[in-house]
Amino acid sequence: MPRVRVTRSVHFSAAHRLHRTEWSEVRNREIFGDCSNPNWHGHNYELDVTVEGDIDPETGYVLDLNGLKELLRGSVIGDLDHRNLNLDVEWMMGTIPTTENLVVAIWNRIRPRLPEEILLRRLVLRETPRNWAEYEGG
Amino acid sequence: MPRVRVTRSVHFSAAHRLHRTEWSEVRNREIFGDCSNPNWHGHNYELDVTVEGDIDPETGYVLDLNGLKELLRGSVIGDLDHRNLNLDVEWMMGTIPTTENLVVAIWNRIRPRLPEEILLRRLVLRETPRNWAEYEGG
Amino acid sequence: MPRVRVTRSVHFSAAHRLHRTEWSEVRNREIFGDCSNPNWHGHNYELDVTVEGDIDPETGYVLDLNGLKELLRGSVIGDLDHRNLNLDVEWMMGTIPTTENLVVAIWNRIRPRLPEEILLRRLVLRETPRNWAEYEGG
Amino acid sequence: MPRVRVTRSVHFSAAHRLHRTEWSEVRNREIFGDCSNPNWHGHNYELDVTVEGDIDPETGYVLDLNGLKELLRGSVIGDLDHRNLNLDVEWMMGTIPTTENLVVAIWNRIRPRLPEEILLRRLVLRETPRNWAEYEGG
Amino acid sequence: MPRVRVTRSVHFSAAHRLHRTEWSEVRNREIFGDCSNPNWHGHNYELDVTVEGDIDPETGYVLDLNGLKELLRGSVIGDLDHRNLNLDVEWMMGTIPTTENLVVAIWNRIRPRLPEEILLRRLVLRETPRNWAEYEGG
Amino acid sequence: MPRVRVTRSVHFSAAHRLHRTEWSEVRNREIFGDCSNPNWHGHNYELDVTVEGDIDPETGYVLDLNGLKELLRGSVIGDLDHRNLNLDVEWMMGTIPTTENLVVAIWNRIRPRLPEEILLRRLVLRETPRNWAEYEGG
Repeated sequence: MPRVRVTRSVHFSAAHRLHRTEWSEVRNREIFGDCSNPNWHGHNYELDVTVEGDIDPETGYVLDLNGLKELLRGSVIGDLDHRNLNLDVEWMMGTIPTTENLVVAIWNRIRPRLPEEILLRRLVLRETPRNWAEYEGG
Repeated sequence: MPRVRVTRSVHFSAAHRLHRTEWSEVRNREIFGDCSNPNWHGHNYELDVTVEGDIDPETGYVLDLNGLKELLRGSVIGDLDHRNLNLDVEWMMGTIPTTENLVVAIWNRIRPRLPEEILLRRLVLRETPRNWAEYEGG
Repeated sequence: MPRVRVTRSVHFSAAHRLHRTEWSEVRNREIFGDCSNPNWHGHNYELDVTVEGDIDPETGYVLDLNGLKELLRGSVIGDLDHRNLNLDVEWMMGTIPTTENLVVAIWNRIRPRLPEEILLRRLVLRETPRNWAEYEGG
Repeated sequence: MPRVRVTRSVHFSAAHRLHRTEWSEVRNREIFGDCSNPNWHGHNYELDVTVEGDIDPETGYVLDLNGLKELLRGSVIGDLDHRNLNLDVEWMMGTIPTTENLVVAIWNRIRPRLPEEILLRRLVLRETPRNWAEYEGG
Repeated sequence: MPRVRVTRSVHFSAAHRLHRTEWSEVRNREIFGDCSNPNWHGHNYELDVTVEGDIDPETGYVLDLNGLKELLRGSVIGDLDHRNLNLDVEWMMGTIPTTENLVVAIWNRIRPRLPEEILLRRLVLRETPRNWAEYEGG
Repeated sequence: MPRVRVTRSVHFSAAHRLHRTEWSEVRNREIFGDCSNPNWHGHNYELDVTVEGDIDPETGYVLDLNGLKELLRGSVIGDLDHRNLNLDVEWMMGTIPTTENLVVAIWNRIRPRLPEEILLRRLVLRETPRNWAEYEGG
């Protein structure tokens, strides 16, 4: 059976701020620049979720992408969309919401919810069209 | 002299919230849905600024778009990028930061700063790739 | 009150064929080329719906774009998405499903369903990223 | 010699339907949803073909991408564009035209037609901007 | 008969330089910045050609866009693609190849070649994704 | 510590020509087609620079992408933007400026300038939206 990867792309809009509470405003500004603005800023995030598996000979699917979309809505997008990544998301508490940390946290949300025979292969999380993070679970 | 329109596209990332303080949370949620989330959310905004004028026979330009970019940075983007539209922007105070209100406020910032012979023709402000507002000053 | 235009973009995937039953296959092929392929072909269509109105001073909206999205789902997208434009769409029966004819038919679906104070200003219907039709009701 | 990958992107528009003839309409609808609509639907497909090889020191090319485009037109796009994937494509007969099955079949068309020293590295086939399949021959 | 606009988008890649021979290098650099680099630079241009007309009741077309594409290849793209706008294009000689001047020159190439009942409505010429010119013949 | 890849995308516009001086014009035209046009042509190039590393537990960053952008401006974009790849770029002298050769040369510029703990993972260089080269240093 050929191994194929399929991707579903979803999006959400959220506010965040990069700062460490134990650092001074000056230090935060030095490290995080405008991203540490105390009153927050935000982004339209794009998330590409790629899974890998054998093609099911009956359906021709690796995984029904509508099912994957529903799984993502329930476990990820519902928690993030129109939310504040620092204040509103239980599974991001205590983590600086950089794209890097967020993509790893999203991986940990999705991985245990996939069918056993499906491999979560790659996440790409775009913060802007010019900046993104990619995680393969390594 | 041919009349031509030229456009410069710029972008900024900002947080906002849609709500009226004199309304209850329930009423705000009813009218604005998730956009009224108390802890803010945000977007990558794209702004297309279109001006119209005669082509200068010496330069072949209607307007030097690098100059327009600098003008936009100084009068608009510098105030909006990595900011909170409800809290940080003096010229948005007291205004609900919908895309509609924001595009009109941006128009009022740009219009008086353009050379007299240049007509501000159209602004397009994209909140997401699927939602945008357009203003021609009418 | 400033007059502003707001746009909601939606999409659907459909099959179609360009042909006139009273013409021979040769004549259909001559006029419509590959678009007359008897076994159909299809597209991912993108539809930009632009309405114009005064900004409501209470909400800052011309029109709630989530409401517009629901209206479009109910009156247009639900009938077109994953359908055959020649066979499945009651309000396209007897019409060759060119982008031109389709954009006019969509206009006639949306126009009577909008609130009275809202002007339907422009539809853009993209058949491919390189071919599209635009209608302003004229 | 550095090993580099080069990609040529091509597109085609086609109709298809996901269904198994030995299943009832109810069963097909249950598994494939709207994708099983009896009268077909369709998409604008985008195909990215990535090959890998050494840079030829004389030309600076891994492979002339115009040559690759012609090869793709002759062996893939000519058969798929403005066609029905279930009815018109000899090398898809008996296969449910999911994106997964289609990307594997396209691989099998391209692979034997490439020069021997060129490695077919990856195919990405986009059914919509939000759904795609990727195959590396594994 | 409804009046509809249809657009065909085409592209070309060209080199150019903005400078006036009667000006010094210093003056050219002052006005045109990096765009006056003596050894040229270049762009991938995108051109959207919009025409307006009645829908033909027999074909459902305002204009066959494949025919428009061929017309554009013959009269515009063939002269511009992989060329130097200052040196290689007869109908740009003596004109500084700004986007503004180029879009007007392209208009003058296309206008007399269209069928009499078809109105050339608008050209949009993108020099980069962030800079473009628009001409409606005024 | 999770290993994550982050990407910064930058762009530049440049002229070039593909030809070998020791070949005749006929031979150059045969191998390189329009790309050998003696008076140059040009492109808007897009460069995606992907680096890999551990997430710094203090900052949540693999690498500050604003810092990466500055590094790219200083070592790559400043030399290429609004330049002629055959004539103006010291580190491309004697090399045919194909996308393949250019992506390798850019790799060799960036690699020694990155912090030691950061792995340069992948470069993608797009010459047009339909043609690109990818290099992983192999």
